[in-house]
Amino acid sequence: MKATDAEVDIVRLLKTGGGDHISGQMISLELGISRTAVWKHIGVLRKAGYSIEGSPKKGYRLLPFPVPFNGIEVRSGLKRGIIGRNLFFFPTLDSTNTKASRLAAGGADEGTVVIADGQSDGKGRLGRKWHSPPGVNLYTSIILKPDIPPQQAQTLTLMAAVAVAEAVEAYSPVRPTVKWPNDILIESKKAAGILTEMNSETDRVNFVVLGIGVNLNMNLPDELLHTATSIKEKTGREVSRAEFAQRLFSSIEKWYKVFLAEGFEPVSSVWRTYFDREGKHINVRGSREVEGICMGIDSQGSLLVRLGSGQVERVISGELA
Amino acid sequence: MKATDAEVDIVRLLKTGGGDHISGQMISLELGISRTAVWKHIGVLRKAGYSIEGSPKKGYRLLPFPVPFNGIEVRSGLKRGIIGRNLFFFPTLDSTNTKASRLAAGGADEGTVVIADGQSDGKGRLGRKWHSPPGVNLYTSIILKPDIPPQQAQTLTLMAAVAVAEAVEAYSPVRPTVKWPNDILIESKKAAGILTEMNSETDRVNFVVLGIGVNLNMNLPDELLHTATSIKEKTGREVSRAEFAQRLFSSIEKWYKVFLAEGFEPVSSVWRTYFDREGKHINVRGSREVEGICMGIDSQGSLLVRLGSGQVERVISGELA
Repeated sequence: MKATDAEVDIVRLLKTGGGDHISGQMISLELGISRTAVWKHIGVLRKAGYSIEGSPKKGYRLLPFPVPFNGIEVRSGLKRGIIGRNLFFFPTLDSTNTKASRLAAGGADEGTVVIADGQSDGKGRLGRKWHSPPGVNLYTSIILKPDIPPQQAQTLTLMAAVAVAEAVEAYSPVRPTVKWPNDILIESKKAAGILTEMNSETDRVNFVVLGIGVNLNMNLPDELLHTATSIKEKTGREVSRAEFAQRLFSSIEKWYKVFLAEGFEPVSSVWRTYFDREGKHINVRGSREVEGICMGIDSQGSLLVRLGSGQVERVISGELA
Repeated sequence: MKATDAEVDIVRLLKTGGGDHISGQMISLELGISRTAVWKHIGVLRKAGYSIEGSPKKGYRLLPFPVPFNGIEVRSGLKRGIIGRNLFFFPTLDSTNTKASRLAAGGADEGTVVIADGQSDGKGRLGRKWHSPPGVNLYTSIILKPDIPPQQAQTLTLMAAVAVAEAVEAYSPVRPTVKWPNDILIESKKAAGILTEMNSETDRVNFVVLGIGVNLNMNLPDELLHTATSIKEKTGREVSRAEFAQRLFSSIEKWYKVFLAEGFEPVSSVWRTYFDREGKHINVRGSREVEGICMGIDSQGSLLVRLGSGQVERVISGELA
């Protein structure tokens, strides 16, 4: 459900109070709402998992634990900006991308975010599944409405990859790498993935949905043991999902603004610092197999491969071996 | 609503009978359905606007007039193929593209067609309206699922333009021209338009909706008098909308098969025969204005313009002045 402004603001207020009590009257004045409304919102917050002590004389006090994972908590730690100004949180969804697409088709604003605690039908690229158990990871989708032709939408995936890599880097013992076009790896194992979907005319994007899954605290199931990892597996430490989400959204906010103001060029420069295959021999399987030396990416985010013949081939879509 | 196979088959049978009666038993045998079912379908057909005489001894006979405009009539004249194998007809829709997108998102097959007699919110390119009065024109949307990257989707618009131009040509006193990227003109006035929308990942199209509006029998309203025309305005003759739709769908069927088998190249060759601006000085307004000599289109359907500097610029999106 949607994280409402009033509840987010109350959590912010209670947090700035540190361990101190804040009176209902103060909250009522700060937010410009009635005492009764404050009392109702406090009830919602308690149901949402916050421990809030209330005393008729002193007012309300937020206990530091437990820190729930929900939309209110995520938004309460976000700076004001585009990404996450509307935030929908669900205990479970089939797919955050599907939900976000529906919201966008219904007119949801740019920057609207969907988070699910777990996904029953998490989507990966090329019709694959994304393993999405509840309670451990981050599954989120973000609606963007950039004024670009669909031909350039791949560059948004790479922009997101930079933002995700930055966020992962803050928690990872080693620098993550990006695997073109949409995975973030730690020591060659998948820690995060991006699925960009869009609705467009042939020359104009109506909206883009950036779907992002990050393996945070997941214990790897046997079938993923050799290909995937999680932050916790690498560090032994539990990551706060709300804190990670805040870091990720502010990173996306930053890079999206760079992208809108200066285009793909500066994003691409940083992306390359996370990309470790340039100059190496690679193999890409797309509509056909392309093999050669990786020459980096072009201005549309396509992969450039120098074939044995010396010719450079542009790969729009494919799977890096 | 959906034109059912049984009703389409009964209309086909009655038409092959010419003016003769066909017995209920014969229809029942041919279609493998009960006599009662035949009787029910005949009732539906009568409600749908067909004049069907019934005599207990001789059977059923279809009178040549009136020829209704509906999904059954359109399908009854189509050869078996992909385009129109599923066909939904509505007296009125907000937009056939919106309806077709919803059907596609719900899993509708490739080739599914939506037709509306009139549209209350007909869509043109770049968020514009498409004038869509009921009773006079053709408004249709076709679901395609080609295995192409979104970067190539513009070529589908141009494929559709060839198919529409061919169909219009069969009724027009002069050869129509195409205006890049999506209009079909008769003597410089808009006779038809195409709005291609798609749902895709950044490197894979999930589905494309080809929206096509053709001005057939419309009397031009004042505000469109200088920019648009209709077949009837040009010829003085009423066009059968069902017949035009059949011709259009079989033209799309043909060109889509060429496109899938041989790519854009052969489509592009024919498109150029309808395009009258190559080699001429043109002005394209997109994200910025580009002026120069038109050098035709490239393999992605983008317009090529040779600037004063001699450099050739590729225009993905824009409006030809």
